[in-house]
Amino acid sequence: MEQVNVTLTETISVLLDEKKYTTLRDILVTMKPYDIAAVFEELKDEKVPILFRILPKELAAETFVEMDDETPRLLIPGFSDSELKEVVDELFVDDAVDLIEEMPANVVKRILRQADKDTRKQINELLKYPEDSAGSIMTTEFIVLRPDMTAEMAIKRIRRTGVDKETIYTCYITDDNNKLIGTTTVKDLLLSDDDEFVKDIMEENVISVKTLDDQEEVAHTLSNYNFLALPVVDIENRLVGIVTVDDAIDVIQEETTEDIEKMAAVLPSDKPYMKTSVFGIYKKRIPWLLVLMLSATFTSTIISSFEDALSSMIVLSAFIPMLMDAGGNAGSQSSVSVIRAISLDEVEFKSMFKVLWKELRVSILCGVTLAAANFVKLIIFDLHGNENAFWIALVVSLALIGTVIIAKLIGSSLPLLASKIGFDPAVMASPLITTLSDALSLMIYFALATSILNL
Amino acid sequence: MEQVNVTLTETISVLLDEKKYTTLRDILVTMKPYDIAAVFEELKDEKVPILFRILPKELAAETFVEMDDETPRLLIPGFSDSELKEVVDELFVDDAVDLIEEMPANVVKRILRQADKDTRKQINELLKYPEDSAGSIMTTEFIVLRPDMTAEMAIKRIRRTGVDKETIYTCYITDDNNKLIGTTTVKDLLLSDDDEFVKDIMEENVISVKTLDDQEEVAHTLSNYNFLALPVVDIENRLVGIVTVDDAIDVIQEETTEDIEKMAAVLPSDKPYMKTSVFGIYKKRIPWLLVLMLSATFTSTIISSFEDALSSMIVLSAFIPMLMDAGGNAGSQSSVSVIRAISLDEVEFKSMFKVLWKELRVSILCGVTLAAANFVKLIIFDLHGNENAFWIALVVSLALIGTVIIAKLIGSSLPLLASKIGFDPAVMASPLITTLSDALSLMIYFALATSILNL
Repeated sequence: MEQVNVTLTETISVLLDEKKYTTLRDILVTMKPYDIAAVFEELKDEKVPILFRILPKELAAETFVEMDDETPRLLIPGFSDSELKEVVDELFVDDAVDLIEEMPANVVKRILRQADKDTRKQINELLKYPEDSAGSIMTTEFIVLRPDMTAEMAIKRIRRTGVDKETIYTCYITDDNNKLIGTTTVKDLLLSDDDEFVKDIMEENVISVKTLDDQEEVAHTLSNYNFLALPVVDIENRLVGIVTVDDAIDVIQEETTEDIEKMAAVLPSDKPYMKTSVFGIYKKRIPWLLVLMLSATFTSTIISSFEDALSSMIVLSAFIPMLMDAGGNAGSQSSVSVIRAISLDEVEFKSMFKVLWKELRVSILCGVTLAAANFVKLIIFDLHGNENAFWIALVVSLALIGTVIIAKLIGSSLPLLASKIGFDPAVMASPLITTLSDALSLMIYFALATSILNL
Repeated sequence: MEQVNVTLTETISVLLDEKKYTTLRDILVTMKPYDIAAVFEELKDEKVPILFRILPKELAAETFVEMDDETPRLLIPGFSDSELKEVVDELFVDDAVDLIEEMPANVVKRILRQADKDTRKQINELLKYPEDSAGSIMTTEFIVLRPDMTAEMAIKRIRRTGVDKETIYTCYITDDNNKLIGTTTVKDLLLSDDDEFVKDIMEENVISVKTLDDQEEVAHTLSNYNFLALPVVDIENRLVGIVTVDDAIDVIQEETTEDIEKMAAVLPSDKPYMKTSVFGIYKKRIPWLLVLMLSATFTSTIISSFEDALSSMIVLSAFIPMLMDAGGNAGSQSSVSVIRAISLDEVEFKSMFKVLWKELRVSILCGVTLAAANFVKLIIFDLHGNENAFWIALVVSLALIGTVIIAKLIGSSLPLLASKIGFDPAVMASPLITTLSDALSLMIYFALATSILNL
């Protein structure tokens, strides 16, 4: 994909310079909105509006939806009110809302002024829902059927009203109070006899979400049940919107990126990496770096308090990094496995002890393996010719076992505890656990050293 | 969801003991396959077959698809050939293949023997495709239309043949040589006039993938274009299958889990955490732990080679952990951001220098901030009363700046280099980068110490 867009962008920008507008239009209409949007991102700013005016109306709107935040910012100020109206009219309400949320206030005013009364009402409704809620990602355009329609009438209704609905494939059946009583699909309607009643075709046991449910939960429900769309209802079970599978996928991708960022001690960002400013990235990264640096005070205090032991056998300090890294790696292996399992609904707090018991056995296996390998390595290489070689190797290897066990137990339990008390498990990942296991492993190390090597 | 399933499972298992089979059937038919499968997973092994026999045929098959690997292993051996045939007949071919891939050879033979000739042929076809290829996740059941059909004829065809197709909403138009020449949707067909020709309705510029394309790429294409299904063609552009959006979502989830595991130095696993044996987890974790431990030999060698410097000012060793953690955290922040950007197609190797330039500026900002905070902290707390306080604090703080810069440059460049030479960027994450930046930061630290504190 990428590769193609690049060369294409170059061709397009040349054609723009040569004002070959008909040729450009011919090229653009053969392209998918997603690829056209990619071209816009690569195009020089001043060329963006010119190219956009060449697009046929509907394609222009579809492309608009696929654009990153920047491109519309370039375009809209240059729009005449009528041009703006054309785009807004073509947009699905939920896309219009996404667009508006990215725009400065004065632009938002202009957009709302251009939208027809009904659309404006819907947009304002959607803007009320908190970010990351089902309401904020749902669309209010969907097919509603009545229970006493026949399959034939239903299909007729769909053919009449379907044109500006984001999806027609899942249809929703509501009673006279607009309460959701069932769902059906175009497939079921097409495969039933014309005179069958919707109420006999429809699935009555409906899975739905509430407007304030978390978008991540919504996305998981939708993907777990392999739905194409999920109905969103208010507290009175009145149907207010639907979330479509394409939006669900976007949510899954966003939320995963956030989890991964948190695991790496980066504050979650809503912008793609390449589009975030240097200072923007700095602000996302420095807080955790500071916290973790300050928390390293523990480790330095511990080491200082064993200065005498160390100075009497300075070689001990050579193995501190190895011990700490082993602990950090072992811990993050466990924490990351558990965090991912939590976010895929595979583990909950109630299975805490199952997890701990699993991790304890794994950590003993890992610890002993590492210790054995390490012991041999120390005797043969690092401590070659040192008269205390055996005893030092023993201390380091025992400390290694202790470190791995502790690191894995902390790494697996902290995320579960976090999820229990309503914190985000992802924050309990590597860095935090490293700092904790560092301190503990050093204490074990020095305790063993002082007793076994009687320093 | 979870919560509900739990209590429900208890009720169901009680009803099973009381042999209340009609009641159970009434409960089960109100449930979605995904939830029934969840119940099976929580149920005692011996009860699984009994409950399964209570399910109506079609629901049984649908539930089968949603089950984890274990449950079918429990069920199939107990099946009579006719029971097995019923399930296999109900399964979509791609689901049958997924099932077969998890089964022991003798069971596979039984399943294939029960499948009707045509299905068996299709299954064997699909089994030929390499794991993680488009061919391995596609289904061979889809709606094919001819260009010279009218919309009305097309809808008739769909109503006649749609029942056992996984999706009817995207239809594929092929020429007489079965070459893919266009796609259309039930929506477009329903919204056009009855006598319009498919060839005039269809989208001729088709996005398709090849049977051997990587499943992750397929999933991304599908989600980028917001398709419900993506056609899979052979080298002669003959249509051989389609990948549906629900399978694409599963692929995205799997691949992300693998990435996250690799980032945490865990070998990717295809099984959920709770379902993997202790030894299974051990095998996934120990290789990297060993490699990283052995590579820590560098750090210990470096420290040993500066033993004299250290022994003459033992306090220096107290700040080694802080320096190393800062490096590790700073590095993994960068590597993880870049790795995620790569897997979301936001960054490529060709923007290597853009990235490095970005990270350089970020790392200077972060490094200086940390160094300043650290300097103050050292002067006030850690080195309080030490006559060399100022100079030691200076050394540590300067080393901190150097460490953060190097860690971030390594962290951001290694994943891009890996992707360039066809390695998996995710493997270039935290642990590997930590080991590298450890060694470098120690060298900087000791170099500064020896020169500034002239040890």
